[in-house]
Amino acid sequence: MTAPRTKASRQSEPDCSIERFLLVFSDRWSFLIMREALMAGVERFADFQKSLGIAPNILTDRLERLVAAEVMTKRSYQEPGARTRRSYHLTQSGKDLAVPLAALQQWGDTHKPPRGGPSVERRSPSGDLVRVGFLDEADSPVSQEDLSFVASAHRSDH
Amino acid sequence: MTAPRTKASRQSEPDCSIERFLLVFSDRWSFLIMREALMAGVERFADFQKSLGIAPNILTDRLERLVAAEVMTKRSYQEPGARTRRSYHLTQSGKDLAVPLAALQQWGDTHKPPRGGPSVERRSPSGDLVRVGFLDEADSPVSQEDLSFVASAHRSDH
Repeated sequence: MTAPRTKASRQSEPDCSIERFLLVFSDRWSFLIMREALMAGVERFADFQKSLGIAPNILTDRLERLVAAEVMTKRSYQEPGARTRRSYHLTQSGKDLAVPLAALQQWGDTHKPPRGGPSVERRSPSGDLVRVGFLDEADSPVSQEDLSFVASAHRSDH
Repeated sequence: MTAPRTKASRQSEPDCSIERFLLVFSDRWSFLIMREALMAGVERFADFQKSLGIAPNILTDRLERLVAAEVMTKRSYQEPGARTRRSYHLTQSGKDLAVPLAALQQWGDTHKPPRGGPSVERRSPSGDLVRVGFLDEADSPVSQEDLSFVASAHRSDH
């Protein structure tokens, strides 16, 4: 079934998945918070603040956006004698951001290399360096030159 | 050799490759221009303007930033009887942005699906759907759960 589409509805909810991603990742802080969560396992509000040097009000706002976008869930925890504090935990959707974030990191490592070399490496359980790349339905690698972007044939069928 | 590092130099040129990527991709227009170039083969200024509905001054600014970041090069072309016009062509660094952009698209398709389904598909020469994923040094797939992000051992050696 084809849902009715108006120009207004398309603008508020873009068709393009890259644009939909950018609605969640509105600025660099969102990327950096997700980097800390995915690559360094940070969960506690105070730990995000410490590792990023971010103002608490901005951190609160960006974390709330990530919760609203369902890439994180918020919990409360309390240590003996302390007040209740907040921690943030990746959902499956949040964990799946490891692919685009690792791909951004790989691009930066290759084309905008930091002076001292990459600060973080991606490793497999056997210690291999891991790259982000393209795989076909049989999990065989597909080279970038062989990849085509095509308009979806099923676009208006459902 | 370890280059001297000051807090100021680290701030102006961040160590993290994701941050270095974000210095180039300052806003959503940069992503959308690269999407048109990579996925639809757009090259001419007028065609970017037409497909994105972007104001010419903003388009000029964002294209110049992409040229300055060496992901595109600028050329001039002239059709008979017309004035000289500008076109923009991907460098190897620009072509390699296909990996992170396809990964963002894949995440959006999965976790923020557009109402009518994905608008663009990634296909191999044999027609297989292509996904973005992790590969080890022997080009075998690595699952997301098995991937580790580790601090680089060679960080301050060169």
